[in-house]
Amino acid sequence: MTSECTPRFLASDNTSGICPEAMAYLLEANQVDDLAYGNDHWTERAANRFRQMFDYDCEVFFVFNGTAANSLALSAMGRSYHSVICHELAHIETDECGGPEFFSNGAKLLTSPGANGKLTPEGIEALVTRRSDIHYPKPKVVSLTQATEVGTVYTREELLAIRAIADKHDLRLHMDGARFANACASLNATPAELTWQVGVDALCFSGTKNGLAMGEAILFFNRELAEDFSYRCKQAGQLASKMRYISAPWLGLLESGAWLTNAQHANAMAQYLTQGLQALPGVSLMFPAQANSVFVELPAHAISALKAKGWTFYTFIGAGGARFVCAWNTTVELLDLLIADVKIALEQHSG
Amino acid sequence: MTSECTPRFLASDNTSGICPEAMAYLLEANQVDDLAYGNDHWTERAANRFRQMFDYDCEVFFVFNGTAANSLALSAMGRSYHSVICHELAHIETDECGGPEFFSNGAKLLTSPGANGKLTPEGIEALVTRRSDIHYPKPKVVSLTQATEVGTVYTREELLAIRAIADKHDLRLHMDGARFANACASLNATPAELTWQVGVDALCFSGTKNGLAMGEAILFFNRELAEDFSYRCKQAGQLASKMRYISAPWLGLLESGAWLTNAQHANAMAQYLTQGLQALPGVSLMFPAQANSVFVELPAHAISALKAKGWTFYTFIGAGGARFVCAWNTTVELLDLLIADVKIALEQHSG
Amino acid sequence: MTSECTPRFLASDNTSGICPEAMAYLLEANQVDDLAYGNDHWTERAANRFRQMFDYDCEVFFVFNGTAANSLALSAMGRSYHSVICHELAHIETDECGGPEFFSNGAKLLTSPGANGKLTPEGIEALVTRRSDIHYPKPKVVSLTQATEVGTVYTREELLAIRAIADKHDLRLHMDGARFANACASLNATPAELTWQVGVDALCFSGTKNGLAMGEAILFFNRELAEDFSYRCKQAGQLASKMRYISAPWLGLLESGAWLTNAQHANAMAQYLTQGLQALPGVSLMFPAQANSVFVELPAHAISALKAKGWTFYTFIGAGGARFVCAWNTTVELLDLLIADVKIALEQHSG
Amino acid sequence: MTSECTPRFLASDNTSGICPEAMAYLLEANQVDDLAYGNDHWTERAANRFRQMFDYDCEVFFVFNGTAANSLALSAMGRSYHSVICHELAHIETDECGGPEFFSNGAKLLTSPGANGKLTPEGIEALVTRRSDIHYPKPKVVSLTQATEVGTVYTREELLAIRAIADKHDLRLHMDGARFANACASLNATPAELTWQVGVDALCFSGTKNGLAMGEAILFFNRELAEDFSYRCKQAGQLASKMRYISAPWLGLLESGAWLTNAQHANAMAQYLTQGLQALPGVSLMFPAQANSVFVELPAHAISALKAKGWTFYTFIGAGGARFVCAWNTTVELLDLLIADVKIALEQHSG
Repeated sequence: MTSECTPRFLASDNTSGICPEAMAYLLEANQVDDLAYGNDHWTERAANRFRQMFDYDCEVFFVFNGTAANSLALSAMGRSYHSVICHELAHIETDECGGPEFFSNGAKLLTSPGANGKLTPEGIEALVTRRSDIHYPKPKVVSLTQATEVGTVYTREELLAIRAIADKHDLRLHMDGARFANACASLNATPAELTWQVGVDALCFSGTKNGLAMGEAILFFNRELAEDFSYRCKQAGQLASKMRYISAPWLGLLESGAWLTNAQHANAMAQYLTQGLQALPGVSLMFPAQANSVFVELPAHAISALKAKGWTFYTFIGAGGARFVCAWNTTVELLDLLIADVKIALEQHSG
Repeated sequence: MTSECTPRFLASDNTSGICPEAMAYLLEANQVDDLAYGNDHWTERAANRFRQMFDYDCEVFFVFNGTAANSLALSAMGRSYHSVICHELAHIETDECGGPEFFSNGAKLLTSPGANGKLTPEGIEALVTRRSDIHYPKPKVVSLTQATEVGTVYTREELLAIRAIADKHDLRLHMDGARFANACASLNATPAELTWQVGVDALCFSGTKNGLAMGEAILFFNRELAEDFSYRCKQAGQLASKMRYISAPWLGLLESGAWLTNAQHANAMAQYLTQGLQALPGVSLMFPAQANSVFVELPAHAISALKAKGWTFYTFIGAGGARFVCAWNTTVELLDLLIADVKIALEQHSG
Repeated sequence: MTSECTPRFLASDNTSGICPEAMAYLLEANQVDDLAYGNDHWTERAANRFRQMFDYDCEVFFVFNGTAANSLALSAMGRSYHSVICHELAHIETDECGGPEFFSNGAKLLTSPGANGKLTPEGIEALVTRRSDIHYPKPKVVSLTQATEVGTVYTREELLAIRAIADKHDLRLHMDGARFANACASLNATPAELTWQVGVDALCFSGTKNGLAMGEAILFFNRELAEDFSYRCKQAGQLASKMRYISAPWLGLLESGAWLTNAQHANAMAQYLTQGLQALPGVSLMFPAQANSVFVELPAHAISALKAKGWTFYTFIGAGGARFVCAWNTTVELLDLLIADVKIALEQHSG
Repeated sequence: MTSECTPRFLASDNTSGICPEAMAYLLEANQVDDLAYGNDHWTERAANRFRQMFDYDCEVFFVFNGTAANSLALSAMGRSYHSVICHELAHIETDECGGPEFFSNGAKLLTSPGANGKLTPEGIEALVTRRSDIHYPKPKVVSLTQATEVGTVYTREELLAIRAIADKHDLRLHMDGARFANACASLNATPAELTWQVGVDALCFSGTKNGLAMGEAILFFNRELAEDFSYRCKQAGQLASKMRYISAPWLGLLESGAWLTNAQHANAMAQYLTQGLQALPGVSLMFPAQANSVFVELPAHAISALKAKGWTFYTFIGAGGARFVCAWNTTVELLDLLIADVKIALEQHSG
């Protein structure tokens, strides 16, 4: 039975494995030796495929994980005495143990609140205009997460409005695309429409959450920011010697279209879960479920009961909140099981 | 024919792929979802296996590559105003683009010459006693590479002598084990005999060069140095979210014994190549071939001829020097082909 | 007349000059050449005088300014992946352009609210216990400012309560003593009573705000934290070659007792100003004036009128707030002039 | 008698005090309160005076000491993964405890030998062309010291040749002017002739060695490199709150012409000492004495005898070498005493 052999993991899309399309390319890349440090053919093909898919001659780099992708990109977009504007729930602020500050050698993050985990032009402007003295680190970059940390997405109109305020104050625009594919799927938009066409300077596109074992792509649409960036990656311990084991699986995702179908599946599962949970009395959605995450408020006893049954999920967003994340391989069976257990948990206590 | 379909790569053990034993575990780890950030069972098993194999309750961490492994370990062993003593040919000095300085936020490397790529007690002491003023970064760590960058190995006696001088001056001992397995094979010594039993405080053990796609293990025998080290890895972009894709292949290497048989094979191939090349007139060995690398002096015309035939190898050690590195999958056929091509290259010109 | 020739500076105690007692020692130190880098006799005498005055064999270092003093002390008290707990109005958070993050290579500041600019045990504990995962920088230091940024002082009881919570969670205690002398004067307490006797590990004692041209003293009561600290200062550009020009004026402050009388005078002037302003209708005090700063709420038109008359003061704490800071050389005449101008400004508009 | 009351300090120009011209301005600046953080009138006047004196609209910044001046300027001229080419005896390499690496967050210094402490175009080119791979930090800056660490000076022709090779390889040119005034005096050249007219991008001009208590000026002739540099200084703990105590004495040096007459005097004293020592048998000059330092080879017994008599001087340049540095206040009487003592020391042993 599914309930016996499948781990009850909905904590993150990090618990899922390598999808078949990526694995096929990984295995193929393993057939023959190839040159090191990205001089292999897989890496070149993958970079070109990104350029084709984004319809833009961007600079493409591969690094190991998201901490590094975001931190290195931000370091290239400002200096140590600059500041980065981000949402107060941004992953770079809350979950990187000071990674952006470390890689940038001291750049401060200035945080802004905002409904549904989204930065607003007003929030950005408030931080920029608050002070102009030398004791305040000069704002240089806006970093936004697409899809956001609470499972919502920025529309094209919202992105354009942020770009306008960035232009007004000479700020660069960084996109943390930990779930970029889910945003494309959610908005039914092309990668180009959500990035350079709305003025994004650099995108960190996650492969790990999309079906790879590890590996993120950094795409610079503002090519000047990529000057000597390969040296930066090398120095910072992010140049894979056998880089084909990152780039070949990426190519698998891109050529097969799995980058999008994986995201579409995960989003669909989140929708399925949302509907199932909303049908239960006593469950309320915390944020609109627009990508692959579902945030619901649950009574404390229900959370405890679910954890006792082996369900893993995060409860870090406030008291009584639970986050369930769907991945490329999440099944309806698992979600049905979860919904049933939530129902039981809610009834038991009130009974 | 082999000569047609096999790449003529002897530039580095980085050009080889994933060995079967590691791949089997990787595929198995991909069967079921598992917890992220090293909380999976593979990681725990791999760490315990290291402890068993080294016969020591050491602290074990997994990171993505060698730049990070060495730089992070060194950062934990000193502070920014300390210095690290290493050989002038040490990889951390010559090939990391300032990585150790970056991760440590400024620690200087003090370099020493030494025959066959090896530090000597005298060389270390000279650097420590040269100055004692505050303008000279205080020596705190000795870093040595085992096997060395020129394919030689430190004997146990040499290591003990270095430990003695380190004790005298209160220095910590770091071992860059990019080819540690090859050293064990060469010396027919156990991992314990070459590390904590001779006073090594921390070892960076490379899996990438030993048959993995990526991933290195950092072992702290001096456990105090590992305090909060997991935070350091996280902040520095070296915590893999799907860590089982590093730790499971490592476990494959360790449980199968491939970590050693791979190294033994590579060393044997280097011996085979050495003998084949030494039999040719006009070829002289630059260093004793004690591990899996062979350094020979070749006339410039021969180097050019070989490169023209598609052979890839490094020539960075001085003029006229060539480095050939054997890996776990290097074949006798490939080496025979190389030896034959060297012979032709030498004859053509003199003819 | 005073009002004509004296600058109307109440923006900061940074606008005042060198007090006579410090200048006398500076001039004497200039009579004869002396050894560099702190090996002169003035520096030794000043350090010993600090030890005598604090009744403790602490480690003493001199650096150029407050940014450096606080940032270097904090760097010595934690590592890059640790965090520092401070009040949300702490100078290290609001006015150092990322200095603490720069010197520590990435340590995050975790901020807490608190009435009257003061940290509370509850606020500290909330930050420590909020999370315990590796993605959250581990709290290691509590930094408090004495007197605070809003002109209040921590009582000994409050300090002891903070030390208790610090002990509970293994945190080190840093005191930003930009106006430490004013706190001693305000509380009528000895330096010992406000530092090591309440468990302060390190104090940054400002000379600049107390009557020097520049120069701060860092005192480590927890001597282990001072290991190799002189190397840290050197590397970070904070070792004065002609150090006697910092230490001799410090000695002047200490031996003459001016360190305290200067602070007593500044505090008394702040009291005088407080009473004068409070007597005016429409002026309300924002915080208790316990040291040498006075924060009052003024209508926007009054602030504009005062600035138009050449008064310099900060208005950064919220809308309608004005900060006036008194120094060792602030005169009753200047304050009378200010009070009169405030009175006029308030009347003009309402009239 | 002079010999009794004057310290026998010839170790460095750091042992001398504040010259009268600088002191006069310091005292004047102390008469009236003034704005903080460089917004005072002294700082503006001093910066303008530098522009006038260099006949160039350069950017001018004041910092506390030479470690900071050089390290911050170099940080602004490259990134962490770049490298700085300097002479193997350069102060930034030998005597800053890793300061440049710290402020730049990891930039490596690549050192070159060269007669008389001077870089050569050939030496620079050898380092640039040695490698072009990503594992070698990309050379971006050439740093030379004028006058050099061994008391010689670069001629205008030598500087132009270095600028030519810098242009060829797109390198920026940094001048460590710890003894820049002495070089101007030695070459009878204007500041402009030795800086922007020969393509220097940034100069660190030392006031401390020229008669100030502390304080160095950083002049950017390449103004683009100075973008946001004031933020960098602030973050790095190099913004003096009472900046007039650095800038006013500087203005005193500049307006009085003491910057040059001080240097001329020190150089003349070095000439006097050179002639006196060369007249003694057994003394040989190590380098041409072209500025204010004299390097001579002395027998070990003579060095010991001099130190026993209380003479302080450095002996760090090789065995048997002694460095004597003259300052703005070095007297003929003191040098006569030294020469006499050297004579005695040499005779005693051979007798």
